[in-house]
Amino acid sequence: MKKIAILGSTGSIGTNTLEIVGRMADEFAVVGLAAGSNISLLHEQVRKFSPKIVSLRTQAEAARLRADLGRLPIRVVHGPEGAEEVARFEENDIVVAAITGIEGLRPTVAAVETGVRVALANKETMVVAGAILKSRAASSGAEIIPVDSEHSGIFQCLAKERQEDVRKAILTASGGPFFRTPLAEIKDKTVEEALAHPRWKMGRKVTIDSATLMNKGLELIEARWLFGLKPSQLDILIHPQSIVHSLVEMRDGSTLAQLSVTDMRIPIQYALTYPERRNSGLSSLELSRVRSLEFFEVEEERYPLIAFARRALETGKSLPVTLNAANEVAVEAFLRRRIGFADISAVVGEVMERHRVSEAGTLEAVFVIDRETRAQTDNLLKQRY
Amino acid sequence: MKKIAILGSTGSIGTNTLEIVGRMADEFAVVGLAAGSNISLLHEQVRKFSPKIVSLRTQAEAARLRADLGRLPIRVVHGPEGAEEVARFEENDIVVAAITGIEGLRPTVAAVETGVRVALANKETMVVAGAILKSRAASSGAEIIPVDSEHSGIFQCLAKERQEDVRKAILTASGGPFFRTPLAEIKDKTVEEALAHPRWKMGRKVTIDSATLMNKGLELIEARWLFGLKPSQLDILIHPQSIVHSLVEMRDGSTLAQLSVTDMRIPIQYALTYPERRNSGLSSLELSRVRSLEFFEVEEERYPLIAFARRALETGKSLPVTLNAANEVAVEAFLRRRIGFADISAVVGEVMERHRVSEAGTLEAVFVIDRETRAQTDNLLKQRY
Repeated sequence: MKKIAILGSTGSIGTNTLEIVGRMADEFAVVGLAAGSNISLLHEQVRKFSPKIVSLRTQAEAARLRADLGRLPIRVVHGPEGAEEVARFEENDIVVAAITGIEGLRPTVAAVETGVRVALANKETMVVAGAILKSRAASSGAEIIPVDSEHSGIFQCLAKERQEDVRKAILTASGGPFFRTPLAEIKDKTVEEALAHPRWKMGRKVTIDSATLMNKGLELIEARWLFGLKPSQLDILIHPQSIVHSLVEMRDGSTLAQLSVTDMRIPIQYALTYPERRNSGLSSLELSRVRSLEFFEVEEERYPLIAFARRALETGKSLPVTLNAANEVAVEAFLRRRIGFADISAVVGEVMERHRVSEAGTLEAVFVIDRETRAQTDNLLKQRY
Repeated sequence: MKKIAILGSTGSIGTNTLEIVGRMADEFAVVGLAAGSNISLLHEQVRKFSPKIVSLRTQAEAARLRADLGRLPIRVVHGPEGAEEVARFEENDIVVAAITGIEGLRPTVAAVETGVRVALANKETMVVAGAILKSRAASSGAEIIPVDSEHSGIFQCLAKERQEDVRKAILTASGGPFFRTPLAEIKDKTVEEALAHPRWKMGRKVTIDSATLMNKGLELIEARWLFGLKPSQLDILIHPQSIVHSLVEMRDGSTLAQLSVTDMRIPIQYALTYPERRNSGLSSLELSRVRSLEFFEVEEERYPLIAFARRALETGKSLPVTLNAANEVAVEAFLRRRIGFADISAVVGEVMERHRVSEAGTLEAVFVIDRETRAQTDNLLKQRY
């Protein structure tokens, strides 16, 4: 019986993980849950899965859950320290790190430091602190298994391959809702249009990042750390069907690829059962029904954020932190209708231009750069928009 | 330094293997060559690679080579026993089994019995004697690595996977030159039209087998033995671009695939260097240039031999031997313009109908059934055509 803690249990990765664990109750038990903001769902999860430790965002919420649970022997904690306590809980065999944004950084690092398996769903962690995470995992012996479908695909393709035999890893992108939109019209696209993702149902922030392709830019940086590849070994292809999640070209000219229907339960379950697999109950991929898988180069004019992401990938250090923070603030401003769709990349580009690259070799430095960048981006938005 | 013997050195697999070995002379040395019918090419190969043992088809040819080599310390043998001697040569680390047809059976089995790595390019061996080959490999510890691009693809996808996690393996077929031909016109297709394969440049027999899809039927049977899969776990998809060679669907719903440009040097080299890979100097697969990968179900009306191959796959025992022998005779008759294109499947179907299934558990039994089927097919051709 493997014991699982889920950081971000009420989000989309968290609820899907619990669905899988519920189906495989003879193999997995939930010992820890750290919640996002959906308190009623968390109460339900606690009652259904009987974890031993639960963390909520505020002290008041924790007190309410504590009262609600009566005499049940469940430890209830709260705040960022609470999430870290769940991450470090001594019974954990697997920690699913699915708190999004920079908020997920400390709990993810905490889990990695305990040397367990970390099913990593939080993109930002590797983007802003890839080197730190890798070195802590090397010390503790933690196993980091990606949950993102693209990285899970690369991970599966690389299973038995040697690092030096890899020529290139290619992440696919659906291209988002504006892949075929005339370039001149993109700047006037509304929040509703940008949120209408053609393939995946995801959170709002990620969906906008899919429309700008920033999602893929962050994944490039993540892939660098996850797989120890050079920036020149990482590439993106637009693949509107989103069936092939990633491809790995080996130096002998052979390419391995991972394909599936677009269902995030597949990579989540794989991260839990690896190196084995279990029946998922999901239907087979019927390629003859899909009929055609298409691939296109990325037009940088259409997706200007990709050039910025590439620069952050190549420069490293503090630049990925800046890229990520500026983008989060800009996307939030777009979702609040303060700026237009094309302004997202303009804002990120300008913040990056002004940024002076520094080391960012500690978590503290990462947080400082993250906060400074957010403040700068806010200022820029106030001045201009 | 790995020592290689090549059975069928003057054929297309053989010459490609030698090109690879010539490029990687610091890793591989040729110690044995068994020739097909191209004697002048064999003389050239012997001079270039200085093997220690060479086999030719006839005693006269062997004598001529022996004279030609003067005092060079190269053992020259001949005939089926000669090929077997090359296969069993004590210095071999890897035997490339690339003698086509039933002629390749004994030397391949001989190589497997010595417990070395066998790079298997001879389809018929697994088709007619899969159970025998697998049990001898289990006894000797021989490692059988497929050279066929489709099977190499499956082998690569399965690298680290467990047998019980595999749901299905899918071999792709280009569909041959008549994939889009109106059904009514297929029966009148000429030898020249059938030999015009859209993707692969191969020998005449194999090219006709691609047009009828028998090639893929034989590969299904081969895959059964190579990967220990049930008939119901094996499938074929038409994929006209011939970029994806095979796909393996796992029980969690994830599918792994192997892709490359159509160049048989990739799977040959992989069989030599596995589990490592080497630079092949071959250009990268540019999916954005290929643009679209298409997949279609197999129309059994268009490819009637597939139904016969399925039956042989499911029945096993002597039926695959009969299928293979009847097909060889029928294809030969088509190539000699004695029968039409559609007659190939009609002849094979009729011979299979008349066949009474027996065990075929020994090599001797396999040869008897093979000979009988050839005689029966010849008779049928004489009576009818």
